[in-house]
Amino acid sequence: MNGAESLVRTLIANEVDTCFANPGTSEMHFVAALDRVPGIRCVLALFENVATGAADGYARVTRKPAMTLLHCGPGLANGLSNLHNARRARVPIVNIVGDQATYHRPLDPPLTADTEGWAGSVSSWTRVARSAEAVGSDAAEAVQAARSSSTISTLILPSDTSWNEGGVPADHFPITPPSSVASSTVSACARVLRSGEPVALMIGGATLGQRGLEEAHRIAAATGAKLLAPTFNRLIQRGRGRRPIPLLPYLIDNAVATLAGIRHLILVDCLSPVSFFAYPGKPRSLLPPDATVHVLARPEEDGVEALAALAAELSSPALAPLPGSPPPDLASGRITSQAVAQTLAALIPENAIIVDESVSFGFGFYPGTYTAAPHDWLQSCGGSIGDGLPLATGAAIGAPGRRVINLEGDGSAMYTLQSLWTQARESLDVTTVILSNRKYAILEAELIKVGATPGPTALDLFDLQKPTLNWVELAHGQGVEAARAQTLEQLADLLTASNRRNGPFLIELCIA
Amino acid sequence: MNGAESLVRTLIANEVDTCFANPGTSEMHFVAALDRVPGIRCVLALFENVATGAADGYARVTRKPAMTLLHCGPGLANGLSNLHNARRARVPIVNIVGDQATYHRPLDPPLTADTEGWAGSVSSWTRVARSAEAVGSDAAEAVQAARSSSTISTLILPSDTSWNEGGVPADHFPITPPSSVASSTVSACARVLRSGEPVALMIGGATLGQRGLEEAHRIAAATGAKLLAPTFNRLIQRGRGRRPIPLLPYLIDNAVATLAGIRHLILVDCLSPVSFFAYPGKPRSLLPPDATVHVLARPEEDGVEALAALAAELSSPALAPLPGSPPPDLASGRITSQAVAQTLAALIPENAIIVDESVSFGFGFYPGTYTAAPHDWLQSCGGSIGDGLPLATGAAIGAPGRRVINLEGDGSAMYTLQSLWTQARESLDVTTVILSNRKYAILEAELIKVGATPGPTALDLFDLQKPTLNWVELAHGQGVEAARAQTLEQLADLLTASNRRNGPFLIELCIA
Repeated sequence: MNGAESLVRTLIANEVDTCFANPGTSEMHFVAALDRVPGIRCVLALFENVATGAADGYARVTRKPAMTLLHCGPGLANGLSNLHNARRARVPIVNIVGDQATYHRPLDPPLTADTEGWAGSVSSWTRVARSAEAVGSDAAEAVQAARSSSTISTLILPSDTSWNEGGVPADHFPITPPSSVASSTVSACARVLRSGEPVALMIGGATLGQRGLEEAHRIAAATGAKLLAPTFNRLIQRGRGRRPIPLLPYLIDNAVATLAGIRHLILVDCLSPVSFFAYPGKPRSLLPPDATVHVLARPEEDGVEALAALAAELSSPALAPLPGSPPPDLASGRITSQAVAQTLAALIPENAIIVDESVSFGFGFYPGTYTAAPHDWLQSCGGSIGDGLPLATGAAIGAPGRRVINLEGDGSAMYTLQSLWTQARESLDVTTVILSNRKYAILEAELIKVGATPGPTALDLFDLQKPTLNWVELAHGQGVEAARAQTLEQLADLLTASNRRNGPFLIELCIA
Repeated sequence: MNGAESLVRTLIANEVDTCFANPGTSEMHFVAALDRVPGIRCVLALFENVATGAADGYARVTRKPAMTLLHCGPGLANGLSNLHNARRARVPIVNIVGDQATYHRPLDPPLTADTEGWAGSVSSWTRVARSAEAVGSDAAEAVQAARSSSTISTLILPSDTSWNEGGVPADHFPITPPSSVASSTVSACARVLRSGEPVALMIGGATLGQRGLEEAHRIAAATGAKLLAPTFNRLIQRGRGRRPIPLLPYLIDNAVATLAGIRHLILVDCLSPVSFFAYPGKPRSLLPPDATVHVLARPEEDGVEALAALAAELSSPALAPLPGSPPPDLASGRITSQAVAQTLAALIPENAIIVDESVSFGFGFYPGTYTAAPHDWLQSCGGSIGDGLPLATGAAIGAPGRRVINLEGDGSAMYTLQSLWTQARESLDVTTVILSNRKYAILEAELIKVGATPGPTALDLFDLQKPTLNWVELAHGQGVEAARAQTLEQLADLLTASNRRNGPFLIELCIA
């Protein structure tokens, strides 16, 4: 058995059964092994950042890692920005990256690059396989590290470690569960909550599922603490009948206003909030200067269990179930962020997955969809745009039978539009709503924020109108059905139609 | 004056007048400065790898660097693979990459990443600006380094070094010309050429212009040396009336056969040839085991001058001008690589720029176009596919009035198809010929080469037919006129039509 085959067998033994692939020459023995050993579903992407972003989306909805298969050096580089996003979201991914044969690499052939350095910049676990014999245990360790810490592992596979004989498949390596929070930490947070001073409880990561939200709401109800989630999150379970949670606003002034007056911030499975960017003359911290930060559970700890323990220590009563409320009516009139949100709230189907990369136009979407049918809400967590279409693609692979609705800025969508082809190829139930304002609206706002008046050069750099992108043609060109909506009524009709059919659909919503 | 304005003024003083941009929030003060200070043409790209590849194409035809403007962290990551290609081509580029404010970065906001590490992996000169006062001289040094060594410089610009007052524009910094080769080196190579043993003379880089080719041919004519260029090159001046030079074949067996029997290899402005990949059971070196490698001129030395000195030392007679030969007839019949080359040879307009990323189908293009009108031939030098459309875009910006013809595999084109939008926006005279075989044909060949029979998983990973990419729609969707050619006659008609009009045009040539 060669190294490649031992690698495939090890991945299967360690429950990796999905591969998002954009392979090259140095990965051919691995591809041949995937042919020989059934058990891994291969999903082809036409660009690496589609593959890495799809692995992120897949892991969010399945709670287990997919693998990516990437070409040496620059192939990995093409997938880095969505790996950055996945790292910030604490999503497990196992990258298998081909490389030059060990004896060939010192000759510095043209494709040779700093594969190991690039891998290390986004991975918590990185290794270059040294021999066919070790590839199996290397791979098992890679999966173990990714699953135990919800992080990214990258195994670099020189082609001779793949083609040489002597491969030894490894068994399933055990996964370390998240560690428990000390009871003294729980008690300390309980004291803060009983202090009578204003407290905000910010919960993130795995606590944004139904159980964590229930416990957090019990605590807030018993203590008057202000409940919040970070601005961007991996996955929030929400909609009718689920406990609602507001997000910390993106805009720095609004974030500061939200936290004003807080004396204590208790963090659960998230980091202390930091503004995305600094601005001249704006506060350096989002928190009031006299606020104290307390950590109930770090991201690598069991935040849900810690919230339950805290609720118990505070003797928080159980909450009454939320009353069912009817979905809102469809919106009509002008196409505003709030109106689109209202239409979405009316039409999001039961158990849908919403991928929100709506950037500037979409600030009303999250607050406007609390009353939609129960659904999951996914956001890009690393700030690198171009994550939405891949996330939607991977989520649909991981959750067949659920409709994925991707709310996507037109500027952002252009970074990874190749995702549409994979959606068509795999007949994925993804509805992409392109919010077509034909500009980098967020940059226009940012330029004004720094005190400048946009002149012709700046306006030209933010303008996507010359020429106009035609998203219906861009979708058709990749085999995806598509139509344009100029009114809220057309949007509603197209959303309703796409919810009823199988396979991908793209709606270009003209918002300007 | 703030740091950003001093940066713009310094770049202009150092003859940088073209910027390929995909900016983000942290670059807004720089954008505002570009508004205030005229002198730099900004070309917007909708994806970073388009911007970096375009800067490569621009520098190849103008022989001076453009700048790129990229967003912090992942923005740079999205442009790395074409910077890798540019590094391998020894092309000067000056990257300006925004970053978090110096005091904000330690808080690790979400977009923070290893910007400096990523920059260093592709740049010969990397610096993080430390203050508004130093930004001007930093930028002048960046340009100086890029121009003096024909390499990539990256200046990382924390946003406060951009917005703070105190900027000091720097003057023009002097450029170091390539160093001269020692006369003892020239004499040593002359002795090798006079030895009577079989010698190959491999010339690359700047020696592939008309003067270098003339001198190399004089040497070959006088000594019987075999003349060769590397497989992939920055720019070759060729066509009717110019001295022809064959390329070392890409396929390892053909490369070994080409160099069989050679006892001495003399290198001029290129590296000793290495196969792109290693293969089990194939030779590790392309050269015969008993061959000796001699270096006449390293890439950082003046290869053209060295060739002239060597020709003089060998008393090589001047060559008769090449006889003018008529262009070939248009091809007809089956669409083969050779037939397409014949049609190209007939229709390439005078002084055109050919960008060749034709991958598997295009192996006949270079040898089949020696008799075309005089033109420049550009290739991707780093092996990372997705360089062709950006190279063509940047070359057209740098050489207005010249037709650019981009010969492009369909798989490769998908990596950076956003280039078409920039071509439409800037009305660039680029004809893109998509060689549409609807598969990763090179990978199918590579898999067979490693001894495997492609099974269903592998075939599926190489297949771009489910669904078929429609390049006419993908071009239209970005504002580029396009049409499909199913025959050689249609190809000839469309090439002729596109040569006559202004602006971009895309031809989808169905080759399977």
